[in-house]
Amino acid sequence: MGSGRVAVRVGAGRRFFSVSTRRWEVLSTDELPERVHPLFSKSPAATSKLWNLTWPKEPRNILLVKKQNVPFVRTAMIELAKHIKNTYPKTNIILEPAVAHSTHHEFSFPVYTLPPPPASTPFPYTQSTYPRTPGDLINPYHTKTDLLVTLGGDGTILHAASLFSTSRQVPPVLSFAMGTLGFLGEWRWNEFVEAVRVVFEGAGRVLRRERLKVGVYDRDGKRVGGDWGEVQGIGDAHAMNEVNIHRGKDPHLAIVEVFVDGRFLTEGVADGMIISTPTGSTAYSLSSGGSIIHPSVSSLLITPICPRSLSFRPLVLPADSVLTLKLSERNRSDEVEVNVDGRRWGGIGRGEEIRVWSEDMRKEGGWGGIPCVRGGKGGGDDGWVGGLNGLLKFNHPFGEDE
Amino acid sequence: MGSGRVAVRVGAGRRFFSVSTRRWEVLSTDELPERVHPLFSKSPAATSKLWNLTWPKEPRNILLVKKQNVPFVRTAMIELAKHIKNTYPKTNIILEPAVAHSTHHEFSFPVYTLPPPPASTPFPYTQSTYPRTPGDLINPYHTKTDLLVTLGGDGTILHAASLFSTSRQVPPVLSFAMGTLGFLGEWRWNEFVEAVRVVFEGAGRVLRRERLKVGVYDRDGKRVGGDWGEVQGIGDAHAMNEVNIHRGKDPHLAIVEVFVDGRFLTEGVADGMIISTPTGSTAYSLSSGGSIIHPSVSSLLITPICPRSLSFRPLVLPADSVLTLKLSERNRSDEVEVNVDGRRWGGIGRGEEIRVWSEDMRKEGGWGGIPCVRGGKGGGDDGWVGGLNGLLKFNHPFGEDE
Amino acid sequence: MGSGRVAVRVGAGRRFFSVSTRRWEVLSTDELPERVHPLFSKSPAATSKLWNLTWPKEPRNILLVKKQNVPFVRTAMIELAKHIKNTYPKTNIILEPAVAHSTHHEFSFPVYTLPPPPASTPFPYTQSTYPRTPGDLINPYHTKTDLLVTLGGDGTILHAASLFSTSRQVPPVLSFAMGTLGFLGEWRWNEFVEAVRVVFEGAGRVLRRERLKVGVYDRDGKRVGGDWGEVQGIGDAHAMNEVNIHRGKDPHLAIVEVFVDGRFLTEGVADGMIISTPTGSTAYSLSSGGSIIHPSVSSLLITPICPRSLSFRPLVLPADSVLTLKLSERNRSDEVEVNVDGRRWGGIGRGEEIRVWSEDMRKEGGWGGIPCVRGGKGGGDDGWVGGLNGLLKFNHPFGEDE
Amino acid sequence: MGSGRVAVRVGAGRRFFSVSTRRWEVLSTDELPERVHPLFSKSPAATSKLWNLTWPKEPRNILLVKKQNVPFVRTAMIELAKHIKNTYPKTNIILEPAVAHSTHHEFSFPVYTLPPPPASTPFPYTQSTYPRTPGDLINPYHTKTDLLVTLGGDGTILHAASLFSTSRQVPPVLSFAMGTLGFLGEWRWNEFVEAVRVVFEGAGRVLRRERLKVGVYDRDGKRVGGDWGEVQGIGDAHAMNEVNIHRGKDPHLAIVEVFVDGRFLTEGVADGMIISTPTGSTAYSLSSGGSIIHPSVSSLLITPICPRSLSFRPLVLPADSVLTLKLSERNRSDEVEVNVDGRRWGGIGRGEEIRVWSEDMRKEGGWGGIPCVRGGKGGGDDGWVGGLNGLLKFNHPFGEDE
Ligand SMILES: NC(=O)C1=CN([C@@H]2O[C@H](COP(=O)(O)OP(=O)(O)OC[C@H]3O[C@@H](n4cnc5c(N)ncnc54)[C@H](O)[C@@H]3O)[C@@H](O)[C@H]2O)C=CC1
Ligand SMILES: NC(=O)C1=CN([C@@H]2O[C@H](COP(=O)(O)OP(=O)(O)OC[C@H]3O[C@@H](n4cnc5c(N)ncnc54)[C@H](O)[C@@H]3O)[C@@H](O)[C@H]2O)C=CC1
Ligand SMILES: NC(=O)C1=CN([C@@H]2O[C@H](COP(=O)(O)OP(=O)(O)OC[C@H]3O[C@@H](n4cnc5c(N)ncnc54)[C@H](O)[C@@H]3O)[C@@H](O)[C@H]2O)C=CC1
Ligand SMILES: NC(=O)C1=CN([C@@H]2O[C@H](COP(=O)(O)OP(=O)(O)OC[C@H]3O[C@@H](n4cnc5c(N)ncnc54)[C@H](O)[C@@H]3O)[C@@H](O)[C@H]2O)C=CC1
Repeated sequence: MGSGRVAVRVGAGRRFFSVSTRRWEVLSTDELPERVHPLFSKSPAATSKLWNLTWPKEPRNILLVKKQNVPFVRTAMIELAKHIKNTYPKTNIILEPAVAHSTHHEFSFPVYTLPPPPASTPFPYTQSTYPRTPGDLINPYHTKTDLLVTLGGDGTILHAASLFSTSRQVPPVLSFAMGTLGFLGEWRWNEFVEAVRVVFEGAGRVLRRERLKVGVYDRDGKRVGGDWGEVQGIGDAHAMNEVNIHRGKDPHLAIVEVFVDGRFLTEGVADGMIISTPTGSTAYSLSSGGSIIHPSVSSLLITPICPRSLSFRPLVLPADSVLTLKLSERNRSDEVEVNVDGRRWGGIGRGEEIRVWSEDMRKEGGWGGIPCVRGGKGGGDDGWVGGLNGLLKFNHPFGEDE
Repeated sequence: MGSGRVAVRVGAGRRFFSVSTRRWEVLSTDELPERVHPLFSKSPAATSKLWNLTWPKEPRNILLVKKQNVPFVRTAMIELAKHIKNTYPKTNIILEPAVAHSTHHEFSFPVYTLPPPPASTPFPYTQSTYPRTPGDLINPYHTKTDLLVTLGGDGTILHAASLFSTSRQVPPVLSFAMGTLGFLGEWRWNEFVEAVRVVFEGAGRVLRRERLKVGVYDRDGKRVGGDWGEVQGIGDAHAMNEVNIHRGKDPHLAIVEVFVDGRFLTEGVADGMIISTPTGSTAYSLSSGGSIIHPSVSSLLITPICPRSLSFRPLVLPADSVLTLKLSERNRSDEVEVNVDGRRWGGIGRGEEIRVWSEDMRKEGGWGGIPCVRGGKGGGDDGWVGGLNGLLKFNHPFGEDE
Repeated sequence: MGSGRVAVRVGAGRRFFSVSTRRWEVLSTDELPERVHPLFSKSPAATSKLWNLTWPKEPRNILLVKKQNVPFVRTAMIELAKHIKNTYPKTNIILEPAVAHSTHHEFSFPVYTLPPPPASTPFPYTQSTYPRTPGDLINPYHTKTDLLVTLGGDGTILHAASLFSTSRQVPPVLSFAMGTLGFLGEWRWNEFVEAVRVVFEGAGRVLRRERLKVGVYDRDGKRVGGDWGEVQGIGDAHAMNEVNIHRGKDPHLAIVEVFVDGRFLTEGVADGMIISTPTGSTAYSLSSGGSIIHPSVSSLLITPICPRSLSFRPLVLPADSVLTLKLSERNRSDEVEVNVDGRRWGGIGRGEEIRVWSEDMRKEGGWGGIPCVRGGKGGGDDGWVGGLNGLLKFNHPFGEDE
Repeated sequence: MGSGRVAVRVGAGRRFFSVSTRRWEVLSTDELPERVHPLFSKSPAATSKLWNLTWPKEPRNILLVKKQNVPFVRTAMIELAKHIKNTYPKTNIILEPAVAHSTHHEFSFPVYTLPPPPASTPFPYTQSTYPRTPGDLINPYHTKTDLLVTLGGDGTILHAASLFSTSRQVPPVLSFAMGTLGFLGEWRWNEFVEAVRVVFEGAGRVLRRERLKVGVYDRDGKRVGGDWGEVQGIGDAHAMNEVNIHRGKDPHLAIVEVFVDGRFLTEGVADGMIISTPTGSTAYSLSSGGSIIHPSVSSLLITPICPRSLSFRPLVLPADSVLTLKLSERNRSDEVEVNVDGRRWGGIGRGEEIRVWSEDMRKEGGWGGIPCVRGGKGGGDDGWVGGLNGLLKFNHPFGEDE
């Protein structure tokens, strides 16, 4: 690998990009060495919620994901890719297909992207084209990415996380907030040299964000797919923020039965119902009146959306609960919407249900969760406090001058 | 009028019902005498929020509206119609078309309904078929109904109110709660003899529920219609509960600019935004976190639906404000939903807006509002307190046995 | 009047200030001409919530009230007094006793203050010494003040309003926000020349803030006083923000029965219960979860403080309701606190109650309320929108840079 | 022990009860055998939040705590004591002093109570007299009680827990709800035979409720006591529900600085601030707008009481955080109240602070927490769901008949 010559033949030898004068520039991820898994060790200080991130050997395959349609983010991404490649010459830069094809001419080194989809798949790729071919259960992002870097806001991180929504092992995520600083974006862009150094040198501290696992079941208890069906065929889908059921454009209230560990808890008559991770507690759940839960509190949140009851307060349950939302047989419309991390999954009908579990991060040597690299400044601080104050404008007192 | 013989020819002489052995049973409302308008006078007691309802002459045309598809409500309606006709022989019973056609054989007297729609209108009528023919601006319900009686729940009252949504003068509404007692349903069914007597004898006390008026405007400020377009051609549409803008099935937040009296107030980034009457304060607005406003407090409510802000508290504004909700040019989806009283009005695009005024009940001799006949028991009580406690389960203390 | 010679002997001829070389500087308000009452007329524009303020003859007696213990506020007050006197030489400056005595040497003209209290009253006066002598029911502030000017924040306006809490006719209030801009402070200090001109020239626009009237009753229904007893002997006490019952330092929940127009509404088991004006809706009621009510919406708010119920939502009632809060016989502690506008009224015991009415501003030619002079800029705007956004930090969106 | 003869002389040989004909009836807890500690083992089922309770040897010393002043609770307690003694003759019944002295004549066996206080302590004992003598750091309840049984409501459980607030090892608590079923009371009275059997036979399942530890510190960081000072001299005080700072009867807002792990989080301007356990999430925190947290979610809650900010949402933090509430130097009053589990601790002044940690139940073989014996019915259910629905009236839908 490492040579452009091989790249014109990937997979079963198909060419997957338009011929160009410098045709070696976009290579297939199939050419990359296998993924290097990082090591996580718990900080000894009792009050730290962070893990130390180190590498058994140097990370090489770096997936860069950027916000779409913003010129200066494109520029920044190119600068970052060059910086990484210059500083660590053995690294390989992976880009999403559309990004790879529209930026490869900016680089003096090859960039990698996914192998092409089957002939029937419309070209060009977009960010929302899932990286899979029918019958091909191996997602190259999952098997190759050592480190994931995002440039954008919360939406970009959510998108990047979604690329690993069917993987049990998300690579460390290094996020740069471009412009508007989002709640999840940890580093300011002007810190990028420092940030890259910290991560590569194994000096990073990582917040593990527990995800939740979602399955959709029909009225006979059989697992079903939707738009994401085939993906789910290969395992559980994971959400970073939340899954919700919502009445959508039906003007009538949805009727949703809620079960905890298989036992009936309550019936929500509402616009909808959210099951959220602690990370998602500052997203839709917050807008719906939920509390803010620190991402280190292992738990699942049930937050109703505009419930037709004065006394439906948000609930926080242990992460090892299994939560079920079932569309009541008495629901007025035939179908309600299911959304995962702000992306439409599909509709479910009466008697159908979604089930939610949290990832168990205590199992299997600390795997699980989205390992987000924290800013390096300060001692034991985990950045959450700053996010609350700066970004959520938490607890702004009144009556004071701007 | 009053004789079955005339009935076979209505309007321009068209027959509008299937020939039957007792073909005189369903007559056109065109045959009815003109509407009798009631008189409202304010109760002298300082603390009463109610008006006295009297009649300059005996009411004759009684429109009965019932909940659909519930056998015992149908039975009750038939009993009520017979009781009214027996007790006050000069009265005429008006029914919605589908109801008239499916129950007329139960009566020994004719019932009235709307004249037929133009040939192109699909038969049979449903409750949601609006009572109008193209080019015919005169709604017979508006010109003929002296008294409106509903049998059902809040939904039935909302539907009945919607039949007068383009009228400035809603007849007195006498509501019976069938089974489940709704917040707006004032009389229990077993009180029907008393209720009818009270209303006909001019001993009724009435709560005037202010409605709001809605107009939809395009980006050039021109009034537009939607599904309700033609109706709006003949005047303002009125809502009893609320109008809202909602993201609908689009999974992304809607961005809505709010103006008060033409001045910018704030930009809501939210699922949606509600403008509600005090009556609607116990409907969707309540589920979205709004306060409960007594229907006699002349005001309009702005309540955000799941706002992306910790500090967007519901607002209560003077009824004489003009409120505007405008879809921001920065809204992500092309269209958001507009709903009026839980009924889809249509969609609006970026730059389009809805404007809301309250009815001014202080003008023109006390016209305006929905005059709801209150239960006769007790002194100055207006029934609202009972509704709060019994129906909303307001302020249920915890920790007590059932 | 107008001559220092008379001033040394007031009331029963007692001297009420220390002898000084320029002893004519502090004179008694008894020397002042009678109060000039302003005229209020409603703005013709339909959507304006403001009144126009004009004077039948030029205002002369100006009461200046300032925040305590802030040097630059003292300096500003002196500058303002001189400006008024220079511009309108016939005006007389009234100051609170302690302020008069500590600043009179700064002026080349006499200032006026209250006649001295009876011998038994401790000297010197403080802002919280009420301006009355036993047996003397005539409050000189009430009979002499044409215009009330405050320099400080909301607390200063509340204090100034409290000087008129037993008067039916509060003079126009011109408020300057000193430093921290409070929600009720209408003018910035640097606008003072303009503000004074506008008011004196009859170009002011006024927001009338409805107050509420409070009475405390024992278990036999007899009116009682507390610390404010004698004041109440001469009439109703009025509150600008709210009256509340609170458990105080008793660690147990208070049990309070709530009545509307003499009818039982609910029993609150809570830290306490607030009855608020619309003006007070942005004060304690807001912190307790109440909605924000525009001061022109004629109403009273009931807001529970930390109620032991999931379903006790704040209520908004018509202003012409009589609301009663009664301490339950089952209350655990013997006494709970009653506070009016953030000032302790006293305690009430089991079976005792407070009753609240709103001022009726519709009666008697527009009297009633606190006439607050609004900033002169803009057309129909009433300043409230600015207050919401600037001061309450209403609807701050998250995730954006400062 | 076991013989009445010894009992008349305890401690330094003082008699501590009035001489009676059957003077052996009230004995000192000093006579009792040492405490038997139960064993907790985790239920193997993945979703269970409960522990199994077994005994290395049969429990013998049973402390019965009852609600005061309710005749039928007294009767029930006597019945229960007799039942236990009859069924397990080797058990010893411990009662609180006042209860022991007022009921001993009902039993044909001796009951045990605390040794007498020093001569200066007023007699008779009340439930709130703490069981300690100066210089005697050994609390007999802590060293002798095998099993704690409560008869009453939540308040009685709180009181019983407070008897162990300075102990690291709370015995298993078996609670009977008498009449009004409280949220924490697990068994109905009519189940008492079954409940006792389950516990004694080692078939009990236990919910471990994490407590929080509170320390009060002066402005130099030195630990201080208050009313509870001496108790704290012997170790940390623990709370079952919460600790709060509150303005008390001062009518002005308190200003409290909040620190997490020593880092400044925010400044609360509010009535007060609560730090709560998950158990306390359904107590004061809930009334103040907090979410409901399952007692198995290891965490601490920060909930403001009526904050002067639109954007101070409740927070949920990891249990291993150290939270600090410090009274600001800018606080208006000299002192604010500190309450622990609804009991006044004392006041703190400006610059003074309270620090809160959670018990760490993961340490030392499962010690820590309040082990509450759950009802035996059903499989994996932990009773919490029932409490929510039945007791909190969680999510009562509106509009339905009672
Ligand atoms: N009414 C509401 O508050 C709604 C919120 N959402 C949220 O939007 C998310 C999807 O995001 P986009 O695709 O970017 O949609 P979007 O473009 O509609 O933006 C969602 C907003 O949520 C913020 N956000 C996302 N995750 C967050 C987190 N964990 N903590 C704090 N802020 C967060 C983003 O910064 C952005 O401001 C969903 O996962 C859902 O949580 C979705 C629909 C309605
Ligand atoms: N999340 C929510 O709370 C939502 C509420 N709605 C409300 O539903 C109304 C339409 O009603 P339906 O067609 O019957 O729809 P529906 O069958 O979905 O029922 C709405 C519920 O609201 C109740 N309701 C209606 N008006 C009320 C009022 N003024 N005060 C108290 N309760 C009231 C009804 O009794 C019923 O329980 C809309 O005007 C809107 O206010 C609509 C969508 C969502
Ligand atoms: N937890 C809370 O929010 C509490 C609020 N208060 C409020 O404080 C008021 C007394 O004020 P002070 O003597 O200055 O006490 P203070 O010095 O404790 O300050 C009260 C705060 O409320 C603000 N405020 C007062 N009236 C307001 C209004 N109508 N709208 C918006 N903000 C307003 C002031 O600017 C100040 O920030 C009471 O009338 C009560 O409304 C009193 C106790 C507790
Ligand atoms: N505004 C409020 O909600 C206030 C609540 N409290 C609570 O009262 C507790 C002290 O209780 P008492 O001495 O009996 O005082 P109390 O006689 O004033 O009763 C407090 C109420 O809280 C309930 N309660 C106590 N702990 C609970 C829990 N963990 N979950 C659900 N409900 C619970 C009790 O059943 C009772 O109804 C404090 O720990 C505090 O949480 C104290 C003051 C004000």
